[in-house]
Amino acid sequence: MNPTKQSKQFQILSKDKLLVMMGVMEFGKKEITKKSKDFSRWYTDVILKAELADYAPVKGCMVIRPYGYALWEGVQKHLGQAIKASGVPNAYFPLFIPHSFLEKEKEHVKGFSPELAVVTHGGGKKLTEPLVVRPTSETIMYPLFKKWIQSWRDLPFKVNQWCNIVRWELRTYLFLRTLEFLWQEGHTAHATHEEAEEEALARMRMYRDFVEGVLAIPTIVGKKSAAEKFAGAENTYTVEALMPDGKALQCGTSHNLGQNFAKPFAIQFQDETGQLQYVHQTSWGLSTRVIGALIMAHGDDNGLVLPPKIAPVQVVVIPIDPADKKQSEYAKNVVAGLVPASPAGRPASNEATTRVATTIDSRLQYTPGYKYNEWELKGVSLRAEIGEREVKEGTVTLVRRDTNEKFKVQSSKFKVTVEETLDAIQKNLYQKARNYLDKSTREVKEYAEFKKVMAETRGFIKAFWCGSNECETKIKEETKASIRAIPLEAKEVAEKCIYCGKSPATLVFFAQAY
Amino acid sequence: MNPTKQSKQFQILSKDKLLVMMGVMEFGKKEITKKSKDFSRWYTDVILKAELADYAPVKGCMVIRPYGYALWEGVQKHLGQAIKASGVPNAYFPLFIPHSFLEKEKEHVKGFSPELAVVTHGGGKKLTEPLVVRPTSETIMYPLFKKWIQSWRDLPFKVNQWCNIVRWELRTYLFLRTLEFLWQEGHTAHATHEEAEEEALARMRMYRDFVEGVLAIPTIVGKKSAAEKFAGAENTYTVEALMPDGKALQCGTSHNLGQNFAKPFAIQFQDETGQLQYVHQTSWGLSTRVIGALIMAHGDDNGLVLPPKIAPVQVVVIPIDPADKKQSEYAKNVVAGLVPASPAGRPASNEATTRVATTIDSRLQYTPGYKYNEWELKGVSLRAEIGEREVKEGTVTLVRRDTNEKFKVQSSKFKVTVEETLDAIQKNLYQKARNYLDKSTREVKEYAEFKKVMAETRGFIKAFWCGSNECETKIKEETKASIRAIPLEAKEVAEKCIYCGKSPATLVFFAQAY
Repeated sequence: MNPTKQSKQFQILSKDKLLVMMGVMEFGKKEITKKSKDFSRWYTDVILKAELADYAPVKGCMVIRPYGYALWEGVQKHLGQAIKASGVPNAYFPLFIPHSFLEKEKEHVKGFSPELAVVTHGGGKKLTEPLVVRPTSETIMYPLFKKWIQSWRDLPFKVNQWCNIVRWELRTYLFLRTLEFLWQEGHTAHATHEEAEEEALARMRMYRDFVEGVLAIPTIVGKKSAAEKFAGAENTYTVEALMPDGKALQCGTSHNLGQNFAKPFAIQFQDETGQLQYVHQTSWGLSTRVIGALIMAHGDDNGLVLPPKIAPVQVVVIPIDPADKKQSEYAKNVVAGLVPASPAGRPASNEATTRVATTIDSRLQYTPGYKYNEWELKGVSLRAEIGEREVKEGTVTLVRRDTNEKFKVQSSKFKVTVEETLDAIQKNLYQKARNYLDKSTREVKEYAEFKKVMAETRGFIKAFWCGSNECETKIKEETKASIRAIPLEAKEVAEKCIYCGKSPATLVFFAQAY
Repeated sequence: MNPTKQSKQFQILSKDKLLVMMGVMEFGKKEITKKSKDFSRWYTDVILKAELADYAPVKGCMVIRPYGYALWEGVQKHLGQAIKASGVPNAYFPLFIPHSFLEKEKEHVKGFSPELAVVTHGGGKKLTEPLVVRPTSETIMYPLFKKWIQSWRDLPFKVNQWCNIVRWELRTYLFLRTLEFLWQEGHTAHATHEEAEEEALARMRMYRDFVEGVLAIPTIVGKKSAAEKFAGAENTYTVEALMPDGKALQCGTSHNLGQNFAKPFAIQFQDETGQLQYVHQTSWGLSTRVIGALIMAHGDDNGLVLPPKIAPVQVVVIPIDPADKKQSEYAKNVVAGLVPASPAGRPASNEATTRVATTIDSRLQYTPGYKYNEWELKGVSLRAEIGEREVKEGTVTLVRRDTNEKFKVQSSKFKVTVEETLDAIQKNLYQKARNYLDKSTREVKEYAEFKKVMAETRGFIKAFWCGSNECETKIKEETKASIRAIPLEAKEVAEKCIYCGKSPATLVFFAQAY
């Protein structure tokens, strides 16, 4: 079919879009695998079709497209504010780390060596010492910490960095596993072990509050086992969410590094009595992985479902006939007082960030049905329809993305109803995910049942564990489940380890993990 | 001297600070080389002492410390808003570029080859194709453009990225020349040559407006000569500022790439008549270099002088005796209605960004004089002093950083006076720099005089040029001056080239450049 032969309205060149226009195909729905049918394909379909990301022509890498990047900007806004409000400024440290720096902490280099990208040539010459592309920044930051920290007066010392990270990985899974990803990493130094421990815990709570409060994803939190902790940490704390396929996804992690780095990097301060002491350190990070969690946790067969607090576009207003001046004028009046969403969705002005990000879809070449499907796919929280009837009545028809509920409001009540409904959607999405998490968290006493659950529904299993690396390893080998978190309040009690039967044991959370 | 023997007030461990406390030494002033005495040392001193940046332990690299990074966040806020407001969303593309991609545009690879960092090993293995760390992102973005752009309906296509860039360079000059730096790069594709040309010009104007309006640095703008343009561009436009040592510094650049990349990357669209056409492209960038320009343009012998629009802290309030409850309470009341500056200076809340960022310096261990010097060094626009007398009178003493002018205001007039004075400071800094630029821009007709100016005061020279690469090269060899910009309105006229004497010639701007 030659598009030049068609009327202007049908000059759409992509075959799918053309079929849509011709009424042969509905936008979106047919293009996305059902979530219940093939979760993994659904996930990839949603990301590609909603234009969140795309595969890059470099193996292992992805491109974050504007609509996906707007979600990351939402993370940066909310979490960035929490970090600054807690007294931590941003800074920027080099991308490259001399290999010898990485070697200073032996667990650290062991943990990261298999994942390194190495620069061996620069400016046309072979380097005398190869440079590693940062897999995390402890070893490039801490020589500076040594220089900047002299006295107890310089403590606590805190700094945060938003940057790109490289860990060699060729089996790309969009947002969840890529060779390069984006994150923030906070690093602190303290005078005492207690302070560092409290900092690590506070950051775990900060991540939990962000993931639950903004992304509307309920979590479990706790400590990592020795086998699962960060290479070089004394204690690692974690925030874990449960995805709809029953697998856990880590959404932020926080480490008490003790003096493991302070000693090899000689980061010392003179205390109030004039004694030289090593600092106690923490580091903590959250990455673009959480976008993956966000997509998985709330999405449905029609695509993305975004919690209003992170949605780049919160309300889309659709005049049924945008060529009708009455409808388009009415739409403009209705949204006055809300705020236009910017190109990829975020409001263009910082001033506007707490208000409602809105867009009016007045495109002439698409049918209302096409638009409904497209904005559903994009997860926009609330749709406002304005047709002849609404104009006559002085009403607006609202449709919730989360429940599909449709209701009318008087235009004078539009703004307040939108705000209330966005609140309600945020709460409902959290509650739905909470119900799923609760339902999918089982306390199991017998290993046979443990294996059965992990082979069938998965989810979190609370089970007693003796504390040995051996049992943990065996369980992982046999069920793919690892210890995701040891609850903070957990204690050894007179119960039997689910694997070896020895007592005492501690009640911990197991799950298969991304 | 053992600090434990001293009173709490004197427990300062750095030798310089101790001397300050003991009245032997004034903070800041003696530590900074005079700007007039040794400009280059002054520049480095200010950066290190004001804690804007530090040398990294990796050759060629720097660390941007929180106070310096807050300036970059200011750039991101102001320029980022302008970019979004012009309809361009942010996205993120990979750090690594297969070497073969870079080779597709022959001028491009020639221009960047000497500056590349090359990853040859990943995940413990030698790579079959080496990966280049991006020196700019044309060649990694455009394979995606090819995929995303199909029809004239997809045009214009615009995207922007804030990221790190690596160009191999070992002679570090803080902010101005480092192996790694931060920037934004915008990339667009258009249906016609005219549209691309207009886009490139619009971005040049956007940079000019930002540099002049926010950084308070006057500029000249224009087109680059063939010798100075971007490797792969058809036309390069530039925004150039003049530093106090008479050297020009490029503060943003914009390229009309024509179809130079579209053809090798096969970026085609079907036009309204169904014909396949190559797109016309632009790219444009502004980097952390502008922080260097900002420091140089306004700073003085006492340190940084920041234009209020970019200052992380705009007003510092100093109670003369912070232990005096009356003074500290009074200070708190006075600043009510202003906004606390966040850790490294930026207001913690996005809501607050258009209001006045304020901090109260209530540290007990430092004298007022010490604090004055420290905040002067840090370039804070306005200082508010509150002592016994001010409390009694109901006034506040204000001191302008730019003019050192000291005046009293009634506390009821504090807020409005602060806002007016910040405006006045912004204007005054621009005007001072404008006067310097005007004074330092000379039209020169004789090459002997050209050489004399370039050997002595430097600055911009407007001179006629025949258009030949040869004359341009000779002039650069003999005077270190290159063509910085060809004014947009410039035309060949019946005048003689300053070097070869041939006619016609065009009036262009020469300068030595950073």
